Amino acid sequence: MQQVALTEQLHLSRIVYGWWRLMSWDMDTKAIEQRLEECLALGITSHDHADIYGDYLCEASFGKALKNRPDLRQKIQLISKCGIQLVSPQRPHHGRKNYDTTYAHIVASAEQSLKYLNTEFLDLLLIHRPDPLMDADDIARAFEHLKTSGKVGAFGVSNFSVSEFNLVQSRLSLPLVTNQIEVSVLHHASFHDGSLDQAQQLKRAPMAWSALAGGRLFSGNDAQARQVRQALEQTATDIGAASIDQIALAWLLKHPAHIMPIVGSQSLARIKAASDSLNVTLSRDQWYNIWEAAGGELP
Amino acid sequence: MQQVALTEQLHLSRIVYGWWRLMSWDMDTKAIEQRLEECLALGITSHDHADIYGDYLCEASFGKALKNRPDLRQKIQLISKCGIQLVSPQRPHHGRKNYDTTYAHIVASAEQSLKYLNTEFLDLLLIHRPDPLMDADDIARAFEHLKTSGKVGAFGVSNFSVSEFNLVQSRLSLPLVTNQIEVSVLHHASFHDGSLDQAQQLKRAPMAWSALAGGRLFSGNDAQARQVRQALEQTATDIGAASIDQIALAWLLKHPAHIMPIVGSQSLARIKAASDSLNVTLSRDQWYNIWEAAGGELP
Amino acid sequence: MQQVALTEQLHLSRIVYGWWRLMSWDMDTKAIEQRLEECLALGITSHDHADIYGDYLCEASFGKALKNRPDLRQKIQLISKCGIQLVSPQRPHHGRKNYDTTYAHIVASAEQSLKYLNTEFLDLLLIHRPDPLMDADDIARAFEHLKTSGKVGAFGVSNFSVSEFNLVQSRLSLPLVTNQIEVSVLHHASFHDGSLDQAQQLKRAPMAWSALAGGRLFSGNDAQARQVRQALEQTATDIGAASIDQIALAWLLKHPAHIMPIVGSQSLARIKAASDSLNVTLSRDQWYNIWEAAGGELP
Repeated sequence: MQQVALTEQLHLSRIVYGWWRLMSWDMDTKAIEQRLEECLALGITSHDHADIYGDYLCEASFGKALKNRPDLRQKIQLISKCGIQLVSPQRPHHGRKNYDTTYAHIVASAEQSLKYLNTEFLDLLLIHRPDPLMDADDIARAFEHLKTSGKVGAFGVSNFSVSEFNLVQSRLSLPLVTNQIEVSVLHHASFHDGSLDQAQQLKRAPMAWSALAGGRLFSGNDAQARQVRQALEQTATDIGAASIDQIALAWLLKHPAHIMPIVGSQSLARIKAASDSLNVTLSRDQWYNIWEAAGGELP
Repeated sequence: MQQVALTEQLHLSRIVYGWWRLMSWDMDTKAIEQRLEECLALGITSHDHADIYGDYLCEASFGKALKNRPDLRQKIQLISKCGIQLVSPQRPHHGRKNYDTTYAHIVASAEQSLKYLNTEFLDLLLIHRPDPLMDADDIARAFEHLKTSGKVGAFGVSNFSVSEFNLVQSRLSLPLVTNQIEVSVLHHASFHDGSLDQAQQLKRAPMAWSALAGGRLFSGNDAQARQVRQALEQTATDIGAASIDQIALAWLLKHPAHIMPIVGSQSLARIKAASDSLNVTLSRDQWYNIWEAAGGELP
Repeated sequence: MQQVALTEQLHLSRIVYGWWRLMSWDMDTKAIEQRLEECLALGITSHDHADIYGDYLCEASFGKALKNRPDLRQKIQLISKCGIQLVSPQRPHHGRKNYDTTYAHIVASAEQSLKYLNTEFLDLLLIHRPDPLMDADDIARAFEHLKTSGKVGAFGVSNFSVSEFNLVQSRLSLPLVTNQIEVSVLHHASFHDGSLDQAQQLKRAPMAWSALAGGRLFSGNDAQARQVRQALEQTATDIGAASIDQIALAWLLKHPAHIMPIVGSQSLARIKAASDSLNVTLSRDQWYNIWEAAGGELP
């Protein structure tokens, strides 16, 4: 599978596997090990986590598989996130939902992720949400500490606006290597708010969450979802693709910013379909059919 | 007439003549030659085209006049645009309306414009619309090829947002010399979205399309059009101007970004009125009367 | 009281006293002198004016106190603004409300402020509103003249967007040291439009006008005001603060951009409460309770 070089050291697989729904999949440790092998066989080496996924349980569950199979660690890239504080039985001291991007929280959260994941090293750590109280110096100091101590290899953000990205970058000697944003055939905000322009300009390939619009693509009943589904089905038929998710991902892959879709399906068939999307090249006509079906303007 | 220096080599007349409606004017080649002479007499030396104007027929029609009068070529500046692909009898291979800012399309379109216009050189080539799929490296490569091969002298964009402009500029060794935007007494978006701030900051004088609001100024029946028309009429009376279009253009000319209005009227009287607008200097009171009549805020 | 260093020479008190309602306070010159002493005793050394406050009468009224007490001048910082032209009996030659940011107007307005205020020196001069016609070179020339002539020490803007700030800064050799913006627990625009990001990135501490939402905080009956008031009251109770305005100001003070609230109350008790807000440190939970009560999103 194609890889995207975010730094000299950090290469992600173009399709990233997302574990945020793991706790609803009812996979035991063996099944997780098997899934890791299956992803590897497809060339999907990058795995997306966050401290809060599965109500703070997801990383630990995944980490048991890594403990059983330490040989896998060097073959994969681990991504995690921090900065959101949830009310949870796992965190009884949390009074309410907050963001927290202080030095202390970032460092503690990253170290906790390392423990849960049974690893000594995160390949990539992201600030999960822009915190209206974020102190860019504090974030920079935390990132630089985690880098120097060898605990995290590279850093980025998620859901950041252009000015929020620039603010944090301005205080940081390391590059913010990515902005993980919501973008899909059904969600075009990043085409209009400057995010994709910034990503292309700075050559920081963005990661795409909800790359298949969280299932709305397959079953959404609103007008936009139905129109886009129809356009995807037409294109799938025209080019002989097996399923519409391949087309929806190929639509993201065609963008010059080098979007890396995160696929978070339990189904191996879906993961294979995602992997196959790299072999699909949409024509401009096909791409714009989908753009327009989603309500994208073309004045 | 005042000229605006976009580069050392490229000076445009402050008022630019727009040919986008040529095919509806029913002008024969002789009439086009005469119009060129009339414009020259007024100091209007810059002529705005696009590949798609008149359903791809406009440039060729204009080019016949240039073929008859090769002596005129050195006295005028030719501007064209590319990047939109229309469904048209002239382009039977086009499957649907698209944008196309690939290297191949830009170069082929510019070369086609040269043939139609019967010239060996475009003074200025613009990307007509921001293409959500635009690859800035590709655009830069096309522009640099056209520059090196002597086919185009300078480059710009049209309808680009601030971040889209910055993206393309970031990959280009040549300056983007202008952004041709919609701006008029009835269309203020560029005052609020950063476009005019960027134009002034980078000293890239913008061109104004629909500078007279596409006729809405004269006959629009909505509240905004009626209020603005009334304010324009009052000012025309106050300063003894012959017509409201002079005031509407003088309103644009007063802006410090050095806006270059494109006037696309068939009527010689209108063109003369436009030319005369350069002799009208609005006071701040007059300018703000019109701003406020159009709904512009003044907190 | 904490001071904020805007330049090496210019330090403002973290709480700034605002005089815009002076003419409605019915204070005589002695009372103004007393107010200056009271502010000094609290460490509030910075005083915010504008040419237009009190229908052009405010600065002169304040200036009488300074004339009586020239010893106070060196102990305080005087801030004024220019660029708005009001219809007023004090300015019979003004035809209508306008903005005017020409060289001539800026210089004349600043010189007039000096006369009214009975001082030879303004510590800080701001452009009051972004003028759609502003010529950044003109503004820069006026600022540099006022600096060179020793009449004004530092310069800034008010209510400027990010791109307007960047435009003016791009032509100015001096730093724009602040953007005086509307921000409060009830007014979050600057959290979303990039203004606070820019302020933090450039390390230009913003001043906050309507820092207590112009009284809506205390008596507003709309849903947002009621919810926020309730959250402020809860927090005041929790931490034993005397009043909700302390909490509302502490909420601004917690932001890492170093917001300087302007307090424009006639009541000495309110001014003391404002001063006390510097001793209140909100927890993140408390800050986000207020953010969310005001409708701030937390996805």
